Amino acid sequence: MSQMDQRSGFEALIGDLLSEEGSGARRSELPDGTLIYQPGDKVFDLYYIHSGQIRIYQTGPEDSARLIEILGPNDWFGVEALTPQRLATSRAIAVSRTAVTSIPAEQVLNLLARQPAVALELVRQLAAKLQTAREDAGRLVFDDCNSRLVQTLLRFSRTAAATPQEGGSVMLHITHRQLAQAVGAARETVSLALTQLRQQNLLRTGRNRLLFNPDALKAFGQRTEGAEPVVD
Amino acid sequence: MSQMDQRSGFEALIGDLLSEEGSGARRSELPDGTLIYQPGDKVFDLYYIHSGQIRIYQTGPEDSARLIEILGPNDWFGVEALTPQRLATSRAIAVSRTAVTSIPAEQVLNLLARQPAVALELVRQLAAKLQTAREDAGRLVFDDCNSRLVQTLLRFSRTAAATPQEGGSVMLHITHRQLAQAVGAARETVSLALTQLRQQNLLRTGRNRLLFNPDALKAFGQRTEGAEPVVD
Repeated sequence: MSQMDQRSGFEALIGDLLSEEGSGARRSELPDGTLIYQPGDKVFDLYYIHSGQIRIYQTGPEDSARLIEILGPNDWFGVEALTPQRLATSRAIAVSRTAVTSIPAEQVLNLLARQPAVALELVRQLAAKLQTAREDAGRLVFDDCNSRLVQTLLRFSRTAAATPQEGGSVMLHITHRQLAQAVGAARETVSLALTQLRQQNLLRTGRNRLLFNPDALKAFGQRTEGAEPVVD
Repeated sequence: MSQMDQRSGFEALIGDLLSEEGSGARRSELPDGTLIYQPGDKVFDLYYIHSGQIRIYQTGPEDSARLIEILGPNDWFGVEALTPQRLATSRAIAVSRTAVTSIPAEQVLNLLARQPAVALELVRQLAAKLQTAREDAGRLVFDDCNSRLVQTLLRFSRTAAATPQEGGSVMLHITHRQLAQAVGAARETVSLALTQLRQQNLLRTGRNRLLFNPDALKAFGQRTEGAEPVVD
């Protein structure tokens, strides 16, 4: 099943919820920078994104954070609302003006009872997200910083933060600091690794943006796999 | 919802599958050390554990591995069978003699259509597993090795690898190497950290086993949070 199929599946779900009376669904337009929830908050709603961009962070000591997801139109978030404690362990922030619909998780779960196709879709998406989360953690243990950087750039090149360019390249809108938060490394380390990718003509850097060709970067990542890390 | 409630929910699901004709469910008795699947294999079944113990590892370069789950009676595994590619990215191994029932994932998904309670339970369990996986990854970024060791010991004290002892202590059956794989640190680092916990009378070590009181260890972990790491 392609990512496209998954998306349309969840879109259908949201459509049904919106068309039902009394589902408690509420559409909001969020200004850039709106904090939707943060660690410690109780989360009761699932959120569906119509337009704009949401970033999900885990937070650590002293303002440190780890960017775990960049989400865009047709994605959803608020998985915490499906857990027994409903306690947020991540921070969700709107990047740019973003339109979302919040739906009480209870309503989504009730809908599962009536629409098996929705249950299937939600189970498949959660299983895929679980596999991604485990792979991310594995990379933190097994891969050096350079490999993680390449994997992170490739992953984000398929999100709402990336804009397609000519010749198969993408423009990724992200700061060095945010990228470092996603890679799980110091900003200086990531900046140095980016410089090295730039010297190999695999990447161009601009103010809060990176331009690269995902296919070329992927080929580079596979070529250097198992080789000595440039930055460790 | 307590862990007990979650378990009985999934047990009910398996009971239904077993009682249905033609569900393809198959019970097996696996000797200690049986490899059920490993990275690269296609996984088509979900597995339910009746007795014994299963450990789930992620594998890295040169025989390195990361222990991500210790599972026992009433737990299930094989989440890969629910993803679009059905590709194993982890290794599942039986520890001690283990009885499991494998059920084609398709049959489980078909059952969701007829039993909404099963769908709810599966969605909740997947959401909880996702939250755990993200927290694990966050700890790899934010926490020093000592905090991760304490968190890992506490997590495993609630699994099939732990046997309750007098006075609220548990005996955890695990080698230093396996523990290091779970913590994501070198074996030597973890052995040194264990020695320091032993010197503080928080832990006793034996051959392939550790004896500790989870409550005392938890209190110690909270007391030292934010303090300078003993081992970094």
